[in-house]
Amino acid sequence: MTKLTTNDSGEFVRAGNRFDDRITADGSSGWLVEPGRYRLVVSLACPWASRAVLVRRLLGLQDVISLAIADPIQDERSWRFTLDPDGRDPVLGIRYLAEAYAAADPSYDGGVSVPAIVDVPSGRLVTNDYPQITLDLSTEWREYHRPGAPDLYPQEWRDEIDEINELVFTDVNNGVYRAGFAASQEAYEQAYDALFARLDWLSERLATRRYLVGDHLTEADVRLFTTLVRFDAVYHGHFKCNRHKLTELPVLWAYARDLYQTPGFAGTVNFDHIKRHYYQVLDQLNPSRIVPAGPDLSGWQDPHHREELGGTPFGPDGTPPPDVSELGVR
Amino acid sequence: MTKLTTNDSGEFVRAGNRFDDRITADGSSGWLVEPGRYRLVVSLACPWASRAVLVRRLLGLQDVISLAIADPIQDERSWRFTLDPDGRDPVLGIRYLAEAYAAADPSYDGGVSVPAIVDVPSGRLVTNDYPQITLDLSTEWREYHRPGAPDLYPQEWRDEIDEINELVFTDVNNGVYRAGFAASQEAYEQAYDALFARLDWLSERLATRRYLVGDHLTEADVRLFTTLVRFDAVYHGHFKCNRHKLTELPVLWAYARDLYQTPGFAGTVNFDHIKRHYYQVLDQLNPSRIVPAGPDLSGWQDPHHREELGGTPFGPDGTPPPDVSELGVR
Repeated sequence: MTKLTTNDSGEFVRAGNRFDDRITADGSSGWLVEPGRYRLVVSLACPWASRAVLVRRLLGLQDVISLAIADPIQDERSWRFTLDPDGRDPVLGIRYLAEAYAAADPSYDGGVSVPAIVDVPSGRLVTNDYPQITLDLSTEWREYHRPGAPDLYPQEWRDEIDEINELVFTDVNNGVYRAGFAASQEAYEQAYDALFARLDWLSERLATRRYLVGDHLTEADVRLFTTLVRFDAVYHGHFKCNRHKLTELPVLWAYARDLYQTPGFAGTVNFDHIKRHYYQVLDQLNPSRIVPAGPDLSGWQDPHHREELGGTPFGPDGTPPPDVSELGVR
Repeated sequence: MTKLTTNDSGEFVRAGNRFDDRITADGSSGWLVEPGRYRLVVSLACPWASRAVLVRRLLGLQDVISLAIADPIQDERSWRFTLDPDGRDPVLGIRYLAEAYAAADPSYDGGVSVPAIVDVPSGRLVTNDYPQITLDLSTEWREYHRPGAPDLYPQEWRDEIDEINELVFTDVNNGVYRAGFAASQEAYEQAYDALFARLDWLSERLATRRYLVGDHLTEADVRLFTTLVRFDAVYHGHFKCNRHKLTELPVLWAYARDLYQTPGFAGTVNFDHIKRHYYQVLDQLNPSRIVPAGPDLSGWQDPHHREELGGTPFGPDGTPPPDVSELGVR
C-alpha cells in the first residue's frame, strides 16, 4: 500500500502509479468494459482501495466486477491472498498480487499497491491508478450501473469536484501520510498544520451544506470519507494527527456519520483490517506491533441531523443500494 | 524515570525504590526536618515527581525545600542538569542526579529516578520513595507549612485516601505504563481494560462529589491529577490508552480542569517538558523521536462548574497559595 520514502527534508514522497491503462466503454484504450472480465483487488485497510470498493457498491457493479480482498498484513512480497483457501485468490489463482504485476511487466521491480484491476483471462494487471479507477467506474461503466445508481461525477460539477479533490488529496488524504511518515520534526509540523487548516476549511464548508459539491453524494465525498473513517482509529495516534479527534470536530464528525449511515458505506468499512494493517505493518512507527484496543467506535451510529441541511444522497432519481451485510463485501 | 522491564507474560514490572529513608520532624529516622537542608530533584515531565512539586507548592514549602529541575531528556546516564548554567545544578554542584545516588551508595547500580530528595551538606540521596515523599511533606514538615495550607492527608480520612490511592496507582497511575510498556497484546489489553474500568468508576464517584475524599483537596486528588493532566498529551496516543481522550470523559475532564484552575496546580504543569520527554526518550515506542504538535490544550481553562457540587479546595480555614508564575516553579 505505501512505500515509505522521504526526501532530504524528511518529507514523505508518495510513489507514482506505474500502471495507468484505462478500461473504457469503447475499448479504444485497448481494454474494453466487459462484465465478468476484470477483478478488483483491494485491501479493506487501504483508504485508496476502499474508495473503489465503495464506488463499486454505490453503483451496483458487484456482479460486473468481482472483488479480491487481500490480507491486511503484507509480508516482504507485499499483498497476499492468505485469507483465501490455500492462500490463493480463487479467481486469479495467484498467491501474491505481485504475480499480476509481473504478468503485466516481467521487468517491473517497483512497489505493489492496491487498488489494482486485473484482467482475469490473461492474469495481467491493467491499472493501479487509483484516482482514475473510481472515475472510470462512474463514467465508463455506466451501462452496467444498477437502476437508481447515483451519478458520482456529474458533468456539470466536475470542475468543482476536481478542485476539491486536489485540495483534499494534498492536505488530507495524503496529508495524514505526510504527517505520519515525516522523517523530520519540521516536515511533520508542516503536514500537521496543513492538515488541520484544511479540516477547518472543510468544517466551514460543510457547516451549511450536506455534501461537498452540489446537493448529492459525489466522488469528492467518497474520497474524503475513506480518510475520515480511519482518522481516530489510526491517523490520530499512529500518524500523530492529534490536534483533535474527528469526534471533537462537530461538523466533520456529523458529516462522516451521515455518510457512514448512508446505505452502501458501512459495509465497506472494516475497522479490524484497518487497525491491524497500520499498527502491525509499519514497524518503524510501532515496533511492538501491539494494536490499540480503542477508540470506542460506538458513536458512528449516533444521530447526525444532517438531513436538516437538505440534499439527498443519491440524487432526485436515485435510490439506495440494496442492503448487503458486512461479510458480503465481496 | 522509568525503566522498561517486562516479565514472561509481557507485563510491565515497575522497579522498586531502593532508597526509602524518611525525613522526620523528630529526627528519629536519622534525617531531621530542617529548612534549607534538603533539595528536591524533579523532572516536570514525570508524574511521580510532579506530585511532590505540587504538594510542596500547595503547602508553601518553596523557601524551606529548594527545587532542582532536570532536563526532560535523559541521556545514557539518566537525569541531568543541562538546563542549568554549565550543566551543573547550582546548589548540589553535580551534573547528573546519579552522582547523588553514588554518594549515598557507591555500590548502587540500579535505576536513577525522580523525585529524589538530596541532603545538600553531604550531597547524598536521602530518598527516591515517591509515595512516602509527599505524605511526609504533609505530615512531618507541618511546622513549616504556610499559613492557610490545606491538610492533604487528614487523620480522619487516611484509610479512605490510602484505599483510593491504591486503586488509582494500580489501574491509572501505573496502569497507563502497563498499557504503554506491555510487550504482548494480551498484557496490553488487560491494562487497557483495567484502566478504563477504573476511569469509569472514578467518573461515577466524582459525578456527585467535587473531590475524591471528603470535601477538600487531598493527596488522592494530587495523585490522580498528575496522571490525568498527561493523559491526552501522551498516554492516549503514545501509550495506546485510546478508548477515549480525557476530553471525552465529561466528569473526569471537568474534575481535571477544576484542579488545573485551582491556584497552585497549573504552574507545576509543563506540557513542553511532558511531551518532549515521553516522545523523545522512549525510542522503543517512537523511533522517529518526532513530538506531536497536538493536542489542542486550550480547553484546560474552560469553565468546569464543579463548584456547584460544594466543597472547597483548601478546607474551612485554608487559603489559596500565593500566585506564582509558571517560571517561578523553582
